[in-house]
Amino acid sequence: MNTQLSGTSFIGFSRSTGSQACSQAVNPATGEKLAPQYLAATGEEVEKAMSLAASAFQTYSALSGKTRAGFLRTIADKIEASVEDIAARGPLETGLPEGRMRGETGRTTGQLRMFAALLEEGSWVDARIELAQPDRAPVPKPDLRSMLRPLGPVAVFCASNFPLAFSVAGGDTASALAAGCPVVVIAHASHPGIAEIVATAVVAAAQECGMPEGVFSLLYGGGRTIGQSVVKHPVTQAVGFTGSRAAGTALMASAAARPQPIPVYAEMSSVNPLVILPGALARGEAALAEAYYGSLTLGAGQFCTNPGLVFLPADKGDEFLARLKELVEAGSPATLLNASICSAFSEATGSFATAAGVETLARCGNDAGHGQASPVVYTVSIADFVGNETLQGELFGPGALIVRGSLAEIESAIAGLEGQLTATLQASDEELAENTSLVAALQQRAGRLIFNGFPTGVEVCSSMVHGGPFPSTSDGRSTSVGTMAIYRFCRAVAWQSFPDAALPPELQAANPLGIKRMG
Amino acid sequence: MNTQLSGTSFIGFSRSTGSQACSQAVNPATGEKLAPQYLAATGEEVEKAMSLAASAFQTYSALSGKTRAGFLRTIADKIEASVEDIAARGPLETGLPEGRMRGETGRTTGQLRMFAALLEEGSWVDARIELAQPDRAPVPKPDLRSMLRPLGPVAVFCASNFPLAFSVAGGDTASALAAGCPVVVIAHASHPGIAEIVATAVVAAAQECGMPEGVFSLLYGGGRTIGQSVVKHPVTQAVGFTGSRAAGTALMASAAARPQPIPVYAEMSSVNPLVILPGALARGEAALAEAYYGSLTLGAGQFCTNPGLVFLPADKGDEFLARLKELVEAGSPATLLNASICSAFSEATGSFATAAGVETLARCGNDAGHGQASPVVYTVSIADFVGNETLQGELFGPGALIVRGSLAEIESAIAGLEGQLTATLQASDEELAENTSLVAALQQRAGRLIFNGFPTGVEVCSSMVHGGPFPSTSDGRSTSVGTMAIYRFCRAVAWQSFPDAALPPELQAANPLGIKRMG
Repeated sequence: MNTQLSGTSFIGFSRSTGSQACSQAVNPATGEKLAPQYLAATGEEVEKAMSLAASAFQTYSALSGKTRAGFLRTIADKIEASVEDIAARGPLETGLPEGRMRGETGRTTGQLRMFAALLEEGSWVDARIELAQPDRAPVPKPDLRSMLRPLGPVAVFCASNFPLAFSVAGGDTASALAAGCPVVVIAHASHPGIAEIVATAVVAAAQECGMPEGVFSLLYGGGRTIGQSVVKHPVTQAVGFTGSRAAGTALMASAAARPQPIPVYAEMSSVNPLVILPGALARGEAALAEAYYGSLTLGAGQFCTNPGLVFLPADKGDEFLARLKELVEAGSPATLLNASICSAFSEATGSFATAAGVETLARCGNDAGHGQASPVVYTVSIADFVGNETLQGELFGPGALIVRGSLAEIESAIAGLEGQLTATLQASDEELAENTSLVAALQQRAGRLIFNGFPTGVEVCSSMVHGGPFPSTSDGRSTSVGTMAIYRFCRAVAWQSFPDAALPPELQAANPLGIKRMG
Repeated sequence: MNTQLSGTSFIGFSRSTGSQACSQAVNPATGEKLAPQYLAATGEEVEKAMSLAASAFQTYSALSGKTRAGFLRTIADKIEASVEDIAARGPLETGLPEGRMRGETGRTTGQLRMFAALLEEGSWVDARIELAQPDRAPVPKPDLRSMLRPLGPVAVFCASNFPLAFSVAGGDTASALAAGCPVVVIAHASHPGIAEIVATAVVAAAQECGMPEGVFSLLYGGGRTIGQSVVKHPVTQAVGFTGSRAAGTALMASAAARPQPIPVYAEMSSVNPLVILPGALARGEAALAEAYYGSLTLGAGQFCTNPGLVFLPADKGDEFLARLKELVEAGSPATLLNASICSAFSEATGSFATAAGVETLARCGNDAGHGQASPVVYTVSIADFVGNETLQGELFGPGALIVRGSLAEIESAIAGLEGQLTATLQASDEELAENTSLVAALQQRAGRLIFNGFPTGVEVCSSMVHGGPFPSTSDGRSTSVGTMAIYRFCRAVAWQSFPDAALPPELQAANPLGIKRMG
């Protein structure tokens, strides 16, 4: 390891002294504790981080997009330079394979560079210019120009299931820094070492690029204590979170109860309904089962887009089910991210298995080792599914529920589903064209609709929507993946009758940045 | 009157039978009650309106932008055709002059037509298209396209201070209908007759245009009872409100406490700080005082952008104050919108007048009649202003507080202000260029910055931002005026790997609507 792990928070450019041990990483595959001990930031240190963030906002928000882009690119470079450390430490903390660590590092640096490119191009600020009409009757029209400006310091919570791409320098951090907001990250107790490696890279980049101290801090100490204190802190102006529904809704409640309520972007729980119509079965039931099994078990089923709920015609799909049963039974147990996810999966599958009308289609026959979960698939009739809220819950891991009924019953069950990140339709083109009300029902409940594909594998791009109605996210108007994620941390500001020289360059008459503008 | 006032709610296309009398309009200038009695919608009728709205959403949200535009234009035409009724009834209910009623009718129809034009042009949906790259390594890139879609039925509360432009068919309703959302309006007890005249026009337009029943309903019965039940109703997906901070934060709390929290766009309270620097005084103190007095007393000071808080150098501006004193003392008391606004103004001025260090610069010397308020201006030092929360409160009416201190003290006081709709700087170009940190402090606290002008007179256009940090609005990321207001009621949806024919026209390869798109 090139990065020496010290076990302490980053308070701006300084390292905390901490107060008391708060956590130690545990190898989920062995239960073995990993050095070092991590120390919780003290209350004073949290105050210092927030006060540095407030002061950094004054200067950081005034920097040009190009300067912020340089910072993001330097973070990406520094993280890339730490990839061997990440590849060494990551599997120990998460149970994820080294290849995933390298791949996710690439996704993380890719996200940083995507936002850098967005800033360099510059048009994302939605500049709008309307010239004065001094002679308009009955009253003159003033010169009015608007563009997006950053909200202020943002609290970002690391996600257990994306130790890089949605953690210290992940999508929330990248989009907040891109918008012009300082970031205070709250580390996840599952992977403190990866957090420290990445934070070391971010701080080195901030110093190298001459960024104001406080543009970034990383706090250890736990989401429920340190995390809540950051969310409630008056300096904080928005929150980014990926995790459980219970934790996300607790943050929403805290943010709403502040003297000044602030937006919370929490990505929480989604079962990602997948509807299979006869036309998809006609293309080959076995192949469909194989592709579905691949999506269901990818990353041990620990993706927010995991397709955990399947609707299948009651009178069709026997071969699909038979092949799926074979695959599940012959499958491999997989190490989950941590002990609490492992016990939550075990508890959730337990309540599915014993719910009225639920049958176990297949359970992986191979022995599960320490910290592992076995793939499992249940079936239930629509009649038993509808009205049983338990069965709408997430099986976070390699578990799925297949609901069988008529097309009309399926459509009616979908109308009763909660909000989802994704909804998938496997069907023929003709079925897609004919079932407009089914497609509309799926669209009204999800952020992304997939046709003849699978929801895992979230493309990071300009048209991605990784956000959906509650409870899949706290705020269905937003996405946490792709360039549109920057809009979460901005608000429009208008300038009326300002002299050209006093306007931001984005709004000046000569358009010195050469961006696309309205008007 | 051509519109016969019946005193009952509009439940879709039907009229309610009501249950019991809930309110009767009162002429604020005389205290006289105005017929008819208005009847509160029953609980069953509210259910019916919500259920119609849910079902209308299915069809209304699927209509083309051009069809929705036709509906908005027809509403505007029908309202225009009722302008004589509005001009007759409006002054009786509001104390506002007939000219204001006619002008505000024009603003209302202008807003409806502005959104119609936005829909007809069509690019507002932010269509983004990224083509598939089937050969990309290591994984193929899928075809991904996104655009904005409506949230669902919206609850709109009528505003007391804009009986037309922010009431039944005002900005919130126009932007929600434009987005594709059915609207359930909750009437304001102050102007039930105007509400009925306008609702009659909206329902006639909906029927003439073949809109689904439930695209619009109007409920009488009071914001705290009927209004809260609509906000808590599972069908409702967003809320638009303009009114007091107490009522707005109560709606925010209800919306946050729902099993499915929903966004609330509440425009609440703003004192709209105006900073006067020596350069502005040097241009002519008396003229500045006259222009300021005009803005302060416009509409009896009952605009959300009323400049109620002025920062003036401690050692300058004597002539400004002297002229302002003359104007206030010689001014006219004005009839306020209703008895409760009148008593709130009286109470608020009472607590200002008795606050530590506050002096009354001038109070209108002419007798105030029934329901009237007299213009009044107070002064206070920065030292007494800072830390006295009462003095940050809104004087909703023709009242202002002038705070005097050094430039450094003013800047520091501004950093302690709550969020505002607007912030105004009166200064020379040189002062504007020199005082970057003062301007940044104003920008961080407001949605719109005005240079050498006044905040009243909100232009309805594409670059207007009429929204600011809490508590000026509940959600500083939004505007309630101008075309950007439509974004409040939308969320992005992505389509992955859909055949061209199954995509919305906005996303089809041939771009049949000819809109601007990304990609």
